[in-house]
Amino acid sequence: MTNNRILVTGAAGFVGRAVARALPPGRLRLVDRTRPDFPGAECIAADLTDRRALPALLDGIDAIIHLAAIPGGAAEADPAASRAINLDASLNLIEAASGRARFVYASSIAVFGAPLPDRIDDATPVGPAMTYGAHKAMVETALADAVRRGDIHGIALRLPGIVARPSTSSGLKSAFMSDLIWAARDGSLYVAPVGPDATIWLMSVDRAAANLVHALDCPSGPAINLPALRASVADLVAAVAGGRPSAITYRPDPDLEAQFGRYPPLATPLADGLGFRHDGDLAGLVQSIWSTT
Amino acid sequence: MTNNRILVTGAAGFVGRAVARALPPGRLRLVDRTRPDFPGAECIAADLTDRRALPALLDGIDAIIHLAAIPGGAAEADPAASRAINLDASLNLIEAASGRARFVYASSIAVFGAPLPDRIDDATPVGPAMTYGAHKAMVETALADAVRRGDIHGIALRLPGIVARPSTSSGLKSAFMSDLIWAARDGSLYVAPVGPDATIWLMSVDRAAANLVHALDCPSGPAINLPALRASVADLVAAVAGGRPSAITYRPDPDLEAQFGRYPPLATPLADGLGFRHDGDLAGLVQSIWSTT
Repeated sequence: MTNNRILVTGAAGFVGRAVARALPPGRLRLVDRTRPDFPGAECIAADLTDRRALPALLDGIDAIIHLAAIPGGAAEADPAASRAINLDASLNLIEAASGRARFVYASSIAVFGAPLPDRIDDATPVGPAMTYGAHKAMVETALADAVRRGDIHGIALRLPGIVARPSTSSGLKSAFMSDLIWAARDGSLYVAPVGPDATIWLMSVDRAAANLVHALDCPSGPAINLPALRASVADLVAAVAGGRPSAITYRPDPDLEAQFGRYPPLATPLADGLGFRHDGDLAGLVQSIWSTT
Repeated sequence: MTNNRILVTGAAGFVGRAVARALPPGRLRLVDRTRPDFPGAECIAADLTDRRALPALLDGIDAIIHLAAIPGGAAEADPAASRAINLDASLNLIEAASGRARFVYASSIAVFGAPLPDRIDDATPVGPAMTYGAHKAMVETALADAVRRGDIHGIALRLPGIVARPSTSSGLKSAFMSDLIWAARDGSLYVAPVGPDATIWLMSVDRAAANLVHALDCPSGPAINLPALRASVADLVAAVAGGRPSAITYRPDPDLEAQFGRYPPLATPLADGLGFRHDGDLAGLVQSIWSTT
């Protein structure tokens, strides 16, 4: 990473705050719908769906980490809002950044939809089963085309479930992963919407931020799957609880489990070769989570 | 097909006119940037990029065959125009038609880009290498999501090279296929931008129209590859010339041949099962072309 100035969108969000912590504040322009609060950084409230706001936001910027999005549950409930923010605003930002700034796009494993394949690797075709994932896949296609044209330098990273989010509702259908972690830590009552044998892909928020920052120095290319720690829900709970008793019970929702609890083995040679990393093991994941909170 | 009213966009174009010929004029509302001229049908000049025009265009309409597009060469030269027409207007039309009209989308084999795979079948992932194909792939994703949501009944058909277009420049990079046919028919001088061993996927315009009309009665689903006649350029020229001497010479453009002259064997069990057809053989293709002109 150079001394260049970096714009982070969605900077008031859970991942955005971690990205901001991972970069020198003097180089940061942080933008969100509500003004981010981050000492030493330039903090701006802006509506990315207003195309006219983009040139000023990009003025003097050399790289963008684009995180701003309506999460999956909210996108499913309001596809027009998802189109405005997750699709159109992202396409406008790519166009506005073309010829000016490097573009790191936070895509999502939601580009893979239920029923999930038996294995996912760098060649697995996308097949979203939610509007959120469809719009992420569409932006990936647009960014790859802009890169192919030579209009922009950029890369899209498909993030797995990022933990552990605050237990307030995030609008993400995958929020149960974080809720599980808090319940396992606190020994509190929690009814999980997936079974103990559900398999999920996880990454700590600080590891996600480190990967997004690392992408600022990677070669341009099409969207790539990030490495992720694959674990069963039971193993995650045991790692978090560390031997303490758990008050978690399981009442699987078949539809939710099909989308979020059947993640297969994952191979990411492309991302591995570029230096992207997951948290190593469950102990590493848990340690990273506690260091954030 | 029922007695319902059908909107055809891009109706003044080469494929649009063939679709109009294949349907009862009294059921047709034909729209294009310049007013189509088709006796017995309702003919309208409209700009589909004007979102406010869409409700009136859709009033009383039960099904849409959406053909309007900026072709590949023009899209590559002006990606903003391609976004406005090929992407945004298509997304707006899908939204406007949701809950009202069945949607048949003319996609393209341009969703597959160079280097083309060794074989293409129903499971081959898309990988566009032109802005035109990228936007077609994005609309496919949006339509599939709207179908999944239950917002609309619809299907996307990936059309191969449609022949034989008028020899005026169509803005399509694949126009050489039609130019070849006219030169082979007339014995006129023509320098082909691909070699005689180039392999292409072809369909006569009347067969394309018949498939698009057939799609009005097909179940909804994700985008499908239409069957196409695969032929070498040399065999196509021989079939058209019918033993007459040819004045065609070959000066292959490697980039153009990689995208348009390396189409591999194609298997389309999904489309075959739904009743879509290609022209059978080169004799059938040539006969269909002559019957149109």
